[in-house]
Amino acid sequence: MWDRLLVDCHIATMDPAVDAPFGAIENGAIGIQDGRIVRIGKRTELAGYQAKKVEPLGGAWVTPGLIDCHTHLVFGGNRAGEFEQRLEGASYEEIAAAGGGIVSTVAATRAASRDELVEAARPRLRALMRGGCTTVEIKSGYGLDAATEIKMLEAAKRLGETETVRIDRTLLALHALPTDYREERAAFVRMAIEEILPAVAERRLVTAVDAFCEGIGFTRNEVRALFEAARRHGFWLKLHAEQLSNLRGAELAADFRALSADHLEHADEEGVAAMARAHMAAVLLPGAFYALKETKKPPVDLLRRYGVPMAIATDCNPGTSPVLSPTLMMSMACTLFGLTPEEAVAGMTRCAAKALGREAEIGTITVGKVADLCVWAVDRPAELAYWIGLPGPVRRIVAGEDA
Amino acid sequence: MWDRLLVDCHIATMDPAVDAPFGAIENGAIGIQDGRIVRIGKRTELAGYQAKKVEPLGGAWVTPGLIDCHTHLVFGGNRAGEFEQRLEGASYEEIAAAGGGIVSTVAATRAASRDELVEAARPRLRALMRGGCTTVEIKSGYGLDAATEIKMLEAAKRLGETETVRIDRTLLALHALPTDYREERAAFVRMAIEEILPAVAERRLVTAVDAFCEGIGFTRNEVRALFEAARRHGFWLKLHAEQLSNLRGAELAADFRALSADHLEHADEEGVAAMARAHMAAVLLPGAFYALKETKKPPVDLLRRYGVPMAIATDCNPGTSPVLSPTLMMSMACTLFGLTPEEAVAGMTRCAAKALGREAEIGTITVGKVADLCVWAVDRPAELAYWIGLPGPVRRIVAGEDA
Ligand SMILES: [Zn+2]
Ligand SMILES: [Zn+2]
Repeated sequence: MWDRLLVDCHIATMDPAVDAPFGAIENGAIGIQDGRIVRIGKRTELAGYQAKKVEPLGGAWVTPGLIDCHTHLVFGGNRAGEFEQRLEGASYEEIAAAGGGIVSTVAATRAASRDELVEAARPRLRALMRGGCTTVEIKSGYGLDAATEIKMLEAAKRLGETETVRIDRTLLALHALPTDYREERAAFVRMAIEEILPAVAERRLVTAVDAFCEGIGFTRNEVRALFEAARRHGFWLKLHAEQLSNLRGAELAADFRALSADHLEHADEEGVAAMARAHMAAVLLPGAFYALKETKKPPVDLLRRYGVPMAIATDCNPGTSPVLSPTLMMSMACTLFGLTPEEAVAGMTRCAAKALGREAEIGTITVGKVADLCVWAVDRPAELAYWIGLPGPVRRIVAGEDA
Repeated sequence: MWDRLLVDCHIATMDPAVDAPFGAIENGAIGIQDGRIVRIGKRTELAGYQAKKVEPLGGAWVTPGLIDCHTHLVFGGNRAGEFEQRLEGASYEEIAAAGGGIVSTVAATRAASRDELVEAARPRLRALMRGGCTTVEIKSGYGLDAATEIKMLEAAKRLGETETVRIDRTLLALHALPTDYREERAAFVRMAIEEILPAVAERRLVTAVDAFCEGIGFTRNEVRALFEAARRHGFWLKLHAEQLSNLRGAELAADFRALSADHLEHADEEGVAAMARAHMAAVLLPGAFYALKETKKPPVDLLRRYGVPMAIATDCNPGTSPVLSPTLMMSMACTLFGLTPEEAVAGMTRCAAKALGREAEIGTITVGKVADLCVWAVDRPAELAYWIGLPGPVRRIVAGEDA
């Protein structure tokens, strides 16, 4: 006797072992027990099973719950004022001189209490949940000091405890150089490695460590020093790489067997090949591409050719990607980057799970995995990427329970 | 004694008579009586008034209800399959040869009953309402025969009767040439003018008549013949103009004192000047620009210089703009077309009302107008255009009632 049996539905399992586009099982059924998927198949194959609740879904499509594997969701303030000034003609320099840019977010994040950060982020998290997310990764990185990084990660943890969604937490240890360290890069990097990283590790606040490898961010050598220390702590690694230029961050991340390299607009064949050899995921962030009006697209054909899984995420952040809709990212992945709808849905399910190191637990509808599901009122799964601004699923199920 | 008094809020009146960005009144209050706005001002100025309900809004911003002034919301089927095939490498020719394109939408719309069209459109309408729309214009144009055009408009009417939203209906009389008229353009145009138009007029189904003036649509002369007939029936006029090329549709529309010319990517100074002289509105459709990956933007600077009001709309349609989010259109108007956030909000309120000929009733928060309002949990009105995929307002008020 199972807990639930979902029937009268089609299943986009997204499991490559199911030999059909979207891993689809039409006229399917899903058995759920103790929060996990215990059986899937054609409705007729599951005819002999019983469950406490048998729930017909009206011919809807069921997908894995969406996974937003790259966000900066917790921050103080927002940058709508800057957005407005820029469209009214102010230059980036003028905005920076007036205290704008990431500096303003750092100041607002430092000034906020943990609970203020929680309540500021909650409507953003709820927007992502309404859009279908059952897992959201949240990075620190607007503190640039140990106390604030810890406060951000505690806020992320608190969000996970108070909302029906899984929260993965990442320490973004090298994001920007704080203004008071402008002449002391080395001292800041040392502080990040010797103070922030151990303080976060001790509190068991994260599973992964991330950095921003870029001309306006941190060098390969600085990232390497961080990664070596993070590896000693046993953390998974991720890297913002090749967004605005090619610093060979993808290869660096591959050298460390990172989970993912993210952005990748300027990645080339050597970088992609290195990622493939290291079994990494690529995380594509079309919201940032859109907001920054970029023209150079990530090398989707290369990623396909080398078989690198392509995850898609919102990159939700106040400066370069204030995105609140995961479904819109699937549209943009297709329209801006040329992914197919199937790749786009995989990008927010199976491949996103891989980018978080959680592919054994979530990301496909497969027996044994957690029952994190979305039920969509659509006629075919491609509609998830076809509609522009699709509000979200009609039902979200987390660990087998309606959420 | 008023019906309602909204307090503890800021008001983006969008009324140019209020001398502040967004026509803003901070710490404002709004009195509502019999579904209309009877008084607005600073909270302190309205201190002496009483109402049956005094409602504090927690410091939220109130805007006019959003107006989506250009949609093709009623249609049979959708084109997600085509979208998928295209991204998998099929050419437009292959898709057309397989019965795709507008032909498939016409076939599905003809095959559907009125009630089936209503129920297919309802979730799309609800998505727009959730996004903040209190008025939505719906065009016919997938029937291409009198019976189906009437069925579409009756479906639109029924939607307005069963959902808490104003529906404006437009006869899109010349949209595409049906396949069975391929060799008989003149006969089709005659049929549209002599059969469809009078049949729709007799049933009082629309207030405006529209056409698609384009190489792949209809010529200036064909549109002129339609407009002359429509004017005799007393209809307002609108025109899809200058989307893919410049056929001088803007001037043609201006000659007829049309309410609006819509799309306008290829409009030039003469067209814009003619629109200004005729006091027309421009309707910009960034969703179609995005979905079609266009690169030529509408002449925003010219429209500003000549003082042509710029409305923004979703153009919701199954082929070239399957957009379900009005807030996303404000983001795209800024990011893709360079509008300021204030222009974007005006584009979905004041200027959209003008594009529908309803500026005396809706579109600004002004004494005497209908109390169609949105309440947004934001710190400044620019956030409506800043967030990418903002779900919608926390409250929607239609004719003074919570909706
Ligand atoms: Zn990021
Ligand atoms: Zn249109």
